[in-house]
Amino acid sequence: MMRVGLVGGTGKLGRGLALRLASAGHEVWLGSRDAERADRVAADLGVDVRPVTNAAACAAADIVVVVVPYRGQAQVLRGLGEQTAGKPVVSAVVPLVVDAAGPRPLDVSEGSAAEQCQVLLGAARVVAGLQWVPAPSLLKLDAVLEMDVPLCSDDDDAVAAAVELCDAIKGLRAFHAGPLRLARSLEGLTPLLMSVNKRYHGHTSMRFPGLDLAAGRPEA
Amino acid sequence: MMRVGLVGGTGKLGRGLALRLASAGHEVWLGSRDAERADRVAADLGVDVRPVTNAAACAAADIVVVVVPYRGQAQVLRGLGEQTAGKPVVSAVVPLVVDAAGPRPLDVSEGSAAEQCQVLLGAARVVAGLQWVPAPSLLKLDAVLEMDVPLCSDDDDAVAAAVELCDAIKGLRAFHAGPLRLARSLEGLTPLLMSVNKRYHGHTSMRFPGLDLAAGRPEA
Repeated sequence: MMRVGLVGGTGKLGRGLALRLASAGHEVWLGSRDAERADRVAADLGVDVRPVTNAAACAAADIVVVVVPYRGQAQVLRGLGEQTAGKPVVSAVVPLVVDAAGPRPLDVSEGSAAEQCQVLLGAARVVAGLQWVPAPSLLKLDAVLEMDVPLCSDDDDAVAAAVELCDAIKGLRAFHAGPLRLARSLEGLTPLLMSVNKRYHGHTSMRFPGLDLAAGRPEA
Repeated sequence: MMRVGLVGGTGKLGRGLALRLASAGHEVWLGSRDAERADRVAADLGVDVRPVTNAAACAAADIVVVVVPYRGQAQVLRGLGEQTAGKPVVSAVVPLVVDAAGPRPLDVSEGSAAEQCQVLLGAARVVAGLQWVPAPSLLKLDAVLEMDVPLCSDDDDAVAAAVELCDAIKGLRAFHAGPLRLARSLEGLTPLLMSVNKRYHGHTSMRFPGLDLAAGRPEA
């Protein structure tokens, strides 16, 4: 059992993760800028989660997941450096805009939302991942997920914690995919998947066929 | 049967595509900056391809595939606007560098190598795709590929031609994934796949599970 803090946990992805992680036996601290909104969302979920402020969620957590919209990230994260220091922080944030021509990636001066998260939080151990897990499927407890969750980070222990977290959600296969500077590649996939799902009326995600995780070496 | 012009066709990916496309009955014009090099590569391939300059390959082609290294693209493409005007041009170019920490995406001021290709060629109908097809598997005629090939373009007819081209290679499932401005998402995946393949000693690629292309609508 891990204590999981969700930053921006009242959004769709936050609610989906809260539901799945609490159902799997984790202790979920559902954070929001607006504590009353966290209360309402927690009451609606139908599982035992603890509605709190974002700061309280981070302070209580063994592992933090950031699921705020990209445009709000800088403001929200700036005040959370102390509460996240030394902790694994999973950044699922996607820098994108949707306009008349559909979704497209946004440029981030730090390279990616996850690297910006690292800069803003300072002493957290940031892991980029979970950017394209479909919230509607998480919110249906009987929906079968079937997807790979590559994680990018410079901290192997933080990745191990993030893998353990993802393992609580059936059908996710999470693994260390490379350094944090490849987070941009992960974040860039979400607008592509949104585009594909719109064109083909689907809820597809992503798999690496033929990938054998047991063939990996820790030092690689 | 299509006449396929390969720009930079003497590289690994170019040779792999030449082998597979010629074996499938297409007429392959293998272009190079160095016509003698094209001669040698064509002789080694063991299939019937036509070694020529890049300009001659584009002039002869119904469809062009650009497989030059990113760093050479601007110089090579600048002289090919006339020969590619109005033709479908598939850009498989990936802007990346490999340093001590592994591969990483490069920034491109046009947004992606494919958008830069469009700017350089002017009147071509550019389709981004084929960025991570593994050349070693293409070069073994009996190797079984199993991968999705999302294509990004603003020209539906050019995409249709690129899909027909990909269909010649067994195991590839090519489809229209969105506008050309999402090319960056495709190109960014290659360094991630390289990183994953290095870590797990594999030759994985990418699939969209559960995606039903028949559910698509042309106008989406």
